[in-house]
Amino acid sequence: MLQIEYGVDEQIIELGRGVEEILVVEELSEKLGTARPLRVKAGFDPTAPDLHLGHTVLINKMRQFQEFGHTVVFLIGDFTGLIGDPSGRNTTRPPLTPEQVLENAETYKAQVFKILDPEKTEIRFNSEWMNGLGASGMITLASRYTVARMLEREDFKGRFSANQSISVHEFLYPLAQGYDSVALEADVELGGTDQKFNLLVGRELQKQYGQSPQIVLTVPLLEGLDGVRKMSKSTGNYIALEDSPSDMFGKIMSVSDRLMWRYYELLSFRTTCEMDALKETVDQGANPRDIKIALAEEIVSRFHDARAAQSACKQFFDQFSMNQVPQDIKTVTMSLDNGLRIANMLKDAGLVSSTSDAMRLIKQGAVRIDGDKVEDVALTFHSRTTMVVKVGKRKWARINLEPEGIR
Amino acid sequence: MLQIEYGVDEQIIELGRGVEEILVVEELSEKLGTARPLRVKAGFDPTAPDLHLGHTVLINKMRQFQEFGHTVVFLIGDFTGLIGDPSGRNTTRPPLTPEQVLENAETYKAQVFKILDPEKTEIRFNSEWMNGLGASGMITLASRYTVARMLEREDFKGRFSANQSISVHEFLYPLAQGYDSVALEADVELGGTDQKFNLLVGRELQKQYGQSPQIVLTVPLLEGLDGVRKMSKSTGNYIALEDSPSDMFGKIMSVSDRLMWRYYELLSFRTTCEMDALKETVDQGANPRDIKIALAEEIVSRFHDARAAQSACKQFFDQFSMNQVPQDIKTVTMSLDNGLRIANMLKDAGLVSSTSDAMRLIKQGAVRIDGDKVEDVALTFHSRTTMVVKVGKRKWARINLEPEGIR
Repeated sequence: MLQIEYGVDEQIIELGRGVEEILVVEELSEKLGTARPLRVKAGFDPTAPDLHLGHTVLINKMRQFQEFGHTVVFLIGDFTGLIGDPSGRNTTRPPLTPEQVLENAETYKAQVFKILDPEKTEIRFNSEWMNGLGASGMITLASRYTVARMLEREDFKGRFSANQSISVHEFLYPLAQGYDSVALEADVELGGTDQKFNLLVGRELQKQYGQSPQIVLTVPLLEGLDGVRKMSKSTGNYIALEDSPSDMFGKIMSVSDRLMWRYYELLSFRTTCEMDALKETVDQGANPRDIKIALAEEIVSRFHDARAAQSACKQFFDQFSMNQVPQDIKTVTMSLDNGLRIANMLKDAGLVSSTSDAMRLIKQGAVRIDGDKVEDVALTFHSRTTMVVKVGKRKWARINLEPEGIR
Repeated sequence: MLQIEYGVDEQIIELGRGVEEILVVEELSEKLGTARPLRVKAGFDPTAPDLHLGHTVLINKMRQFQEFGHTVVFLIGDFTGLIGDPSGRNTTRPPLTPEQVLENAETYKAQVFKILDPEKTEIRFNSEWMNGLGASGMITLASRYTVARMLEREDFKGRFSANQSISVHEFLYPLAQGYDSVALEADVELGGTDQKFNLLVGRELQKQYGQSPQIVLTVPLLEGLDGVRKMSKSTGNYIALEDSPSDMFGKIMSVSDRLMWRYYELLSFRTTCEMDALKETVDQGANPRDIKIALAEEIVSRFHDARAAQSACKQFFDQFSMNQVPQDIKTVTMSLDNGLRIANMLKDAGLVSSTSDAMRLIKQGAVRIDGDKVEDVALTFHSRTTMVVKVGKRKWARINLEPEGIR
């Protein structure tokens, strides 16, 4: 049953948050107005799922629908996965076995049920209806769309005009995906912006099969830690759901203030209203760092637990203060001569009482240069440089090394 | 076993007779040279077969292969027939039932076994392998060809550039047809010139499936009785295999001498050597009409029997001489006045002794105008015309009717 405490307008506001596009929002209002729980579909790749936060933007949107009482269909597109690369040319994409599909489904569950409510989630595999379709069903399906309309898809259009090859079977995948919507009688389909064309094919096919066409809701691709490129494994600017609490915490703390708000919008479960309140506090002088901490804690708690989040937070601050350079440290300039040994440098800078004191402290791991622990007691400098040196917990100096004669 | 009395060169000459194209002839020579009986495929539409002589050009070519000891596969493309028009838009193309397919196959057999040797004919249905292919097999098949290469097919290219719609499933049919060649391990595929693209797809697919690619042999579309347009039901310029012996005979006799030789080339079972001899006799003064009679007798004997052919021949000549206008008939010119009744006309032309004599003869069916029997004793002429009138077996006149005052 739909939780009728949520009005249509309220749902539209939250469901529309951070989304790229809703096609068409009037139809969504209408469907929400029926007070019938909607069937909300999102498709996932059946290959070994190793998710990062970028993937959770979509899953978070699914969760919102669940919170409003709707049914979410987590569709695993195993049918195509069982085919692999049909041309057989791509040996890195061998067909999956049915066992691997089930195994991957379990891995998915372990990850996504940290976000989704298992009670309101239907996990389905499209092989269920696609295997029964047969070659003739596939042909019938293919008859529902024209070549010209297929070539309207951005990537097809680009490749076609650039004379890059498109295999005929690539035209069948959007149709298969669209047919999933028919088989599931989806009211809404969610996907990344890059999926828009395929989601609209589903809409078309549903009309042709006499169903009410699904609403298409696209979510943006999340920016990675650099705030510029999309979050992805290949660029390394990602936070994996399997990252350790301290890595996860530290990575979130590393993002810019601007990106923090973007992450709030797309990753936080706080309502839009709560988020607005946080922005207000910053406008009134609160330190954005504290708001970032709250986000990091929320995310780490979600994928680990509250205790892990707390401990990651403490660890982050220990590390942070350890590497934080005081603003009022002294600057010492000294000559390299024919090589300056570290023990002498520390003594000359007044950070230790003697060279033997220096050696002892280095061995204890109490000496850091630019945050990195010094391991080698015989470390010797030969070229001009500037460094921040820390001895123990409180002694600091910025040391400039100059070639002889410059001083 | 291959009838080794036929050498490769001899086979190449006869097999090449009247064909549009052989791709590639060197490969055909090579295959023929193995002395292994080749598998020669030709595909047929599973819808109700009502064949005309145009269709037999291909079947005659199949027969030649049989005569040289090869195996012919008469492939009925029932798989697509069982789908019908997959878009469901074309109500005139409903899906066939399996019973209808079998029934149509029987009709085919009744017709084509007048040409083919049943002992050397494999009748196959492509549903045999296509039904088992499944949606995934269809996708794999579709991965073997690119969209760009599909659009090289003349009709696709034309429709694409004219912005006429091409449904995606239309790209699957050539692939299905090509896959038939893989399933049958065809050495040769025969088809009309309009099939060339599809036959080449089979060649491509066989290579991809590790088979020796089939030789593609295209036959021309036969000209109809007018010698200009292709023989077809819709233009009415055809000879159906089900035509009566006399119709068949008469239609063949009606073609021009030039077209007669074309028909010899594509329809006669006489060898090229025999045909050359016939041409020789005409060059030396023989009446081409007699050569045409021989062709008509051959064709009628094939689809009926020798006795029917003989009787059709006699009937043709009776009819012919009945309508043959003597060269020395008299010409009579008379005035239309205010309408000239036939009885008066016949009397004035001196063809009957009285108008009542005229009426009696008309009632007996003994009066013909331009070969057509006159039925109406009150027939009256009002406008200028010229006609050949025959009364009984021997009385003839060419009558010119002129408006009053012209005479």
